[in-house]
Amino acid sequence: MASNLRAHMKHCFSAASLRSYLAEFVSTFLFVFVAVGSAMSARMLTPDVTSDASSLVATAVAQSFGLFAAVFIAADVSGGHVNPAVTFALAIGGHIAVPSAIFYWSCQLLGSTFACLVLHYFSAGQAVPTTRIAVEMTGFGAAIVEGVMTFMLVYAVHVAADPRACGRSRGLATTAMGSLVVGLVAGACVLAAGSLTGASMNPARSFGPAVVSGDFKNQAVYWVGPMIGAAVAALVHQNLVFPSAPEPLPHEVRHGSVETVVA
Amino acid sequence: MASNLRAHMKHCFSAASLRSYLAEFVSTFLFVFVAVGSAMSARMLTPDVTSDASSLVATAVAQSFGLFAAVFIAADVSGGHVNPAVTFALAIGGHIAVPSAIFYWSCQLLGSTFACLVLHYFSAGQAVPTTRIAVEMTGFGAAIVEGVMTFMLVYAVHVAADPRACGRSRGLATTAMGSLVVGLVAGACVLAAGSLTGASMNPARSFGPAVVSGDFKNQAVYWVGPMIGAAVAALVHQNLVFPSAPEPLPHEVRHGSVETVVA
Amino acid sequence: MASNLRAHMKHCFSAASLRSYLAEFVSTFLFVFVAVGSAMSARMLTPDVTSDASSLVATAVAQSFGLFAAVFIAADVSGGHVNPAVTFALAIGGHIAVPSAIFYWSCQLLGSTFACLVLHYFSAGQAVPTTRIAVEMTGFGAAIVEGVMTFMLVYAVHVAADPRACGRSRGLATTAMGSLVVGLVAGACVLAAGSLTGASMNPARSFGPAVVSGDFKNQAVYWVGPMIGAAVAALVHQNLVFPSAPEPLPHEVRHGSVETVVA
Amino acid sequence: MASNLRAHMKHCFSAASLRSYLAEFVSTFLFVFVAVGSAMSARMLTPDVTSDASSLVATAVAQSFGLFAAVFIAADVSGGHVNPAVTFALAIGGHIAVPSAIFYWSCQLLGSTFACLVLHYFSAGQAVPTTRIAVEMTGFGAAIVEGVMTFMLVYAVHVAADPRACGRSRGLATTAMGSLVVGLVAGACVLAAGSLTGASMNPARSFGPAVVSGDFKNQAVYWVGPMIGAAVAALVHQNLVFPSAPEPLPHEVRHGSVETVVA
Repeated sequence: MASNLRAHMKHCFSAASLRSYLAEFVSTFLFVFVAVGSAMSARMLTPDVTSDASSLVATAVAQSFGLFAAVFIAADVSGGHVNPAVTFALAIGGHIAVPSAIFYWSCQLLGSTFACLVLHYFSAGQAVPTTRIAVEMTGFGAAIVEGVMTFMLVYAVHVAADPRACGRSRGLATTAMGSLVVGLVAGACVLAAGSLTGASMNPARSFGPAVVSGDFKNQAVYWVGPMIGAAVAALVHQNLVFPSAPEPLPHEVRHGSVETVVA
Repeated sequence: MASNLRAHMKHCFSAASLRSYLAEFVSTFLFVFVAVGSAMSARMLTPDVTSDASSLVATAVAQSFGLFAAVFIAADVSGGHVNPAVTFALAIGGHIAVPSAIFYWSCQLLGSTFACLVLHYFSAGQAVPTTRIAVEMTGFGAAIVEGVMTFMLVYAVHVAADPRACGRSRGLATTAMGSLVVGLVAGACVLAAGSLTGASMNPARSFGPAVVSGDFKNQAVYWVGPMIGAAVAALVHQNLVFPSAPEPLPHEVRHGSVETVVA
Repeated sequence: MASNLRAHMKHCFSAASLRSYLAEFVSTFLFVFVAVGSAMSARMLTPDVTSDASSLVATAVAQSFGLFAAVFIAADVSGGHVNPAVTFALAIGGHIAVPSAIFYWSCQLLGSTFACLVLHYFSAGQAVPTTRIAVEMTGFGAAIVEGVMTFMLVYAVHVAADPRACGRSRGLATTAMGSLVVGLVAGACVLAAGSLTGASMNPARSFGPAVVSGDFKNQAVYWVGPMIGAAVAALVHQNLVFPSAPEPLPHEVRHGSVETVVA
Repeated sequence: MASNLRAHMKHCFSAASLRSYLAEFVSTFLFVFVAVGSAMSARMLTPDVTSDASSLVATAVAQSFGLFAAVFIAADVSGGHVNPAVTFALAIGGHIAVPSAIFYWSCQLLGSTFACLVLHYFSAGQAVPTTRIAVEMTGFGAAIVEGVMTFMLVYAVHVAADPRACGRSRGLATTAMGSLVVGLVAGACVLAAGSLTGASMNPARSFGPAVVSGDFKNQAVYWVGPMIGAAVAALVHQNLVFPSAPEPLPHEVRHGSVETVVA
């Protein structure tokens, strides 16, 4: 067991692993850049404080298309998690080792923070918008809503990544369609709950703006809700809906990376 | 015949069938959550009573992307109906047995109601918007419009699910593209008739908000129109457009489910 | 030659041909229903006469998604033209016989008119909006703009339908992706020139509203521009960009239809 | 070496090369037509000077769908660059010879200028909108933002075009999905930074409007930023993320064109 752990740690610094950390960093940077940037750009166009429905459409479409691209460009290298809650769910399912998951988390949080720094310093010091809870809502209710939406997102990730569902052909088109499902379901949830909780579904997406703006209010909501929702999705998918696994989800060794299970 | 029925009833409680009911519940929950949630979120952003075209875009995009994901994540387990009218059309075509169809219906209505309950109780008690008919329209006209749109939706479902049209490769990409067609045609119809009838095309999508809000006005419109439209689509597709079926649509036994015909 | 023509005429009334006419009717109905319906629905939400950019987004998204679905559901039966200009271009290239093309045109114009009738009579007699030219533009300029956009649309149709470009696998996913390109390029053009010419790119889409509203003003613009643009696209694609055809575009006999070249 | 150069120059005027120049011209025309046209159409609908978020959505969706189609229709002929920064990155990676790259650039700039001329002269002389920097931003900051976004765009181009990632099947569906990723990531970036820098990410897209409007202010920003971002993306992708190339990216000879590497 100890040697197993040592092998895991050694694996964490292999070239393939470093490459997958870089891929997670780049992809989370891309996703948070477009998510936060679109909120900033829409706000610059509507001078009065209250935004309108077209701002919601703008940020939802940006997050749909951005998450699609972010998952796609990292899929073959790191698995395209782009989200600590997804990494958590895959760790629960045994598809990524815990030490690797911790490095994934770090890179996701760094990527998100770096994206917010770029937006903050190169947009003439505009405030970076954080994910906020509507005044009528309680923190508990917001965590429930975030959890429910993350459940749906992570459930979709599991279906899209399940190697049993995809037949023999696992080329670029399959990876891209799986990424598209993940991106678009996230966009639909942003439209559904953007006015309620900000529709983060992703602790990294809420962490970066909080760090750069210094406003950590309700940060716990965006960690507890998504983590629980993601864990439930992993358990439901593997134990109830697709239980009769003839073979376990493979720790494929594609392009030298052991973690490549999500595509 | 009696033993046939008994075999059907037994089949209804097999593990595979229970799994497909769960999949229908989750998918209908997802679809109705984003459909109703997006209408609520857009309304919260436009304080005056009358909404504008960007609210229509918001809810149409949410339903497009959400239905795409909902059909996709259930396709391999339950066939991805997500809509009592689709289940009705497939029952007419003989692709799903009537007892199974009744369980499908129940799960779809439960999923829809549960989604509206979550939205109602965790958004600080906001009213759940129901699908409404424009004041200038009659119930008959609205049923016609709903029926015409459901015809197009169910026709697309039949084309996307037809195993003769898809060649040998029936992997994840094919399932995803078929789901995408169904999702996007629904979104286009929401844009076309959102101001006329609410563009439900789905009795479950209208039933959940009616239960939670207690407002069953015009509920019949959203059942009669879609059911007739769906039935006509099934008959036109199987008898006029694609009649020369060399083989019947298969009752495939994939992942242990007998109903998996729509993908 | 005479017997050739007679064989053509006989072919025009074969079961396969009648089926393809029905498919063109249904698909053009779907496309025009969402194109005209989305303009009506957006107008009902903005009470003042001038619309805003979100109305343009609404109708562009509806036409994108609707044309995607319309082409897809007819692709395997009729080739999925949905547009007299596309049929004209394919007739020039020899991919559809002239008598068949005339029946295609008739069905497209009928489908469009029927869609406008449904919208007119079941939306409490709202006026059906026609495609209009901005007051600052001349008819000649509008025809140029329509022609340029139809060139791009029909060029995309040719690339998506070229059997040389698609390798061996020509399943549902390929058909769907080709349809998606056609739908989305149409939507992009609606956003580009919606305020200039209405961005019809399709004589049938302009003909139906003109019949139902009785307003044939500038109708010629929406016939001459698209037809010339489509013809140029066919000639450029076949003679300049993809000239070295080792085999001619096949008159495939799939599902009993001789015209199935566009997918 | 001299004979090598001469062979390159001779190759630049082969029929296949002339065809690929034509394809780049058409595709860049399409992309710039919808990018600039959508900004004009949205502006015509919002009479007051300041636009709102729905204008941003309109132009972002137009650029997403338009770039998708533009890359797709040229992919098999020229590789579908549609962007001098992409051509630059591929020249750095050795996937296109420098003389060919210069001809590509010329055709891209010509296509862009021609699209703006058509819009200018056939829309009753409306002013062609150029990409502009928000007043609060410095030119340096804008170049950084443009560079970061072009990095993400060109990185996605490299992933989508990498022949190692796509398995054996490289048909129309694969090409289309790769083009879709490129188009949608561009649209997401337009939503993210449209209010900051105009989100050009493409020197040709900024050059054409500048020529036709005669306003070359900040033109350097739209050349320096994207070029550096594209070069960094090429280097990062080939040396850090996907370094262990067993085979070099092929100079495929498909349809007679030596440059076909991006699909």
